[in-house]
Amino acid sequence: MQIANTNWNYPTTIWFGNGRINEIAQACKNLGIDNPLFVTDEGLVKLEIVDVTLDILKKEGISFSVYSDVQGNPTEQNVVNGVAHYIKNKHDGVIAFGGGSALDAAKTIAFMSGQIRSLWDFEDVGDNWSYADLAGIAPIIAIPTTAGTGSEVGRASVIVDEKIHVKKIIFHPKMIPAIVISDPELTLGLPPHITAWTGVDAMVHAIEAYCAPGFHPMADGIAIEAIRIIANYLPLAVKDGKNLEARGQMLVAASMGATAFQKGLGSVHSVAHQLGAIYNKQHGLLNAIILPYALKQNKAAIEDRMVHLSKVLGLEKQGTEGIIDYIIGLRRELNIPHTLKEIDINEDNAKEIGEMAFKDPSTPSNASPVNAADLEKLFRAAVSGNLNSL
Amino acid sequence: MQIANTNWNYPTTIWFGNGRINEIAQACKNLGIDNPLFVTDEGLVKLEIVDVTLDILKKEGISFSVYSDVQGNPTEQNVVNGVAHYIKNKHDGVIAFGGGSALDAAKTIAFMSGQIRSLWDFEDVGDNWSYADLAGIAPIIAIPTTAGTGSEVGRASVIVDEKIHVKKIIFHPKMIPAIVISDPELTLGLPPHITAWTGVDAMVHAIEAYCAPGFHPMADGIAIEAIRIIANYLPLAVKDGKNLEARGQMLVAASMGATAFQKGLGSVHSVAHQLGAIYNKQHGLLNAIILPYALKQNKAAIEDRMVHLSKVLGLEKQGTEGIIDYIIGLRRELNIPHTLKEIDINEDNAKEIGEMAFKDPSTPSNASPVNAADLEKLFRAAVSGNLNSL
Repeated sequence: MQIANTNWNYPTTIWFGNGRINEIAQACKNLGIDNPLFVTDEGLVKLEIVDVTLDILKKEGISFSVYSDVQGNPTEQNVVNGVAHYIKNKHDGVIAFGGGSALDAAKTIAFMSGQIRSLWDFEDVGDNWSYADLAGIAPIIAIPTTAGTGSEVGRASVIVDEKIHVKKIIFHPKMIPAIVISDPELTLGLPPHITAWTGVDAMVHAIEAYCAPGFHPMADGIAIEAIRIIANYLPLAVKDGKNLEARGQMLVAASMGATAFQKGLGSVHSVAHQLGAIYNKQHGLLNAIILPYALKQNKAAIEDRMVHLSKVLGLEKQGTEGIIDYIIGLRRELNIPHTLKEIDINEDNAKEIGEMAFKDPSTPSNASPVNAADLEKLFRAAVSGNLNSL
Repeated sequence: MQIANTNWNYPTTIWFGNGRINEIAQACKNLGIDNPLFVTDEGLVKLEIVDVTLDILKKEGISFSVYSDVQGNPTEQNVVNGVAHYIKNKHDGVIAFGGGSALDAAKTIAFMSGQIRSLWDFEDVGDNWSYADLAGIAPIIAIPTTAGTGSEVGRASVIVDEKIHVKKIIFHPKMIPAIVISDPELTLGLPPHITAWTGVDAMVHAIEAYCAPGFHPMADGIAIEAIRIIANYLPLAVKDGKNLEARGQMLVAASMGATAFQKGLGSVHSVAHQLGAIYNKQHGLLNAIILPYALKQNKAAIEDRMVHLSKVLGLEKQGTEGIIDYIIGLRRELNIPHTLKEIDINEDNAKEIGEMAFKDPSTPSNASPVNAADLEKLFRAAVSGNLNSL
């Protein structure tokens, strides 16, 4: 089925289609937002798509201000400064515009805008989220500009605690944006390498969610279809960035990956989160490199599912080994390296990285139980490229 | 993956698992319901599962009253009387307990409990729904006791307009229950023929949704996985009604079928709705009989999708013909007849049935455009059993 403009209502309200960005003022009105804070990142704010979007707001007579002090891998300080900006300018809602970093920061600013407790009190541990003041969470309109993170449909954000160089997950059920404007045209300018890294990120979300041991057939169905779409359209989107069909399919698949991973993620993310915090590398790139090693390590637990997935993808070689070969081939096609070594990550601190990864919130939902030593081994294999060590 | 107790948050909050009915008072508390109206149907109200459920409410000190004047294929009068009961007893929420008829009636009672306009003003035509008073919609807890309708996750109800013997769809986005308690143990007592009819109903929902022409990959993924689950577990659930694994898988698959069909249904439902209103036959049984004929009639439009589906199901014969053969075999295994004739429906009024079916809200989302003559032809084929006439 070809893409077409349409509205979806789960997991949240999604306005999908080319040119839907023109409905941004309507989205504000629907949510009763008169004076939104527009949050984006320090790179995006210089691009034309931001100017065009702000012009639409101006033409519609909506007052707003812009906050763009958001780094890749956003930090607590990015959030604290954003909240101060939000309060000072008496905003009443947030427009989250960007890739994963801007969306995560924006969602966290909206969440923290009316809280008394401090940010790390809401780390995704136990029922921390239940101590939040519901009335203090600002409404969010999310506008993704990459097809990968899926943060636009997620109920969590990843924020770096700089004091200890650790990525922490902030979670609240009401952090899910109330309206998502999902406009493929906004992603036309993404360069091939970002298209590739974010696209494989979406695939990793879907694969780890599908392999997570929870019982969630709805998430499984969404994950499998997302993987099929990404397999069909990611190479096209990377080769021809102006292919709107491929861009649209990737954008919806990214939202599906993140919808599926409400079921849980796994060891790829456990390790990638640590490396992102230490080396400040792009999250999707890290995930893409680590994926085949994690599949190999989880093989015994995921074989049945990988047999089904290889059938869905029409692969000749069935099962986990077939999927690993397929992923390695896809990465090669997309110019993504096979080892962490190639992006200047060595085995330094391997033991600590294994220990930190073990504490990551993604670890308990890994396909099979893993300990710190397993995760250290996974990391070492991904550095050296030795799949057979797993 | 084996079933396990779990909570899901899309398309709405679903508390899934064996014994979750014991959390009914907690669900009332979460929604601020102090005095629920318990709506079920005239058959169910005599069964033990109702007594057990009401005892839980009593033990938890929750006041309530019961309304069970709901027929199979519920009528406007059932709704009107239920609303009068609701208002008279000053209820502040609805517990919808049952199969499709009770759930549809209960949802409509909750919806109409605070409206000024009358029921048919909210028929699912154009933007009728937008004229509802949001504050007048009571919160709903839905508890399905069959695995078929999926009404527990739907935003619509089907109500019979007795004056003209027509099933009409009442729609509002807020008619979706706020909490669904999805407890497989409640379905253990379903007799094999009801298990079969409702189970195939769920499969028809998923197949028609998957074939509907809209662009909705999330619904497609949910639909495909639902079909796979039903194919694996429906025969088991019919053969051994005490198989909790099969009952649980069917219950979640039914919710998935209905989640998927927010994308739209098709000609199976267009015709079945008319026959349900005229002959008062069970909805799932009608759908089950009509399905292969509709697949045949839609073949040109759905062939690609049926090729994919036949791969997912591991069928030897691929494509629409393979799926038709599979469905006919499944029906035979489940003792469902091949023709409408066998359940005493003849070709009387065929022309009128075609014309009425054409006006059914399911018709515009049929896989390929159909007119009244096509639907008459479909009906005649399903009466006589002549697949080759299509």
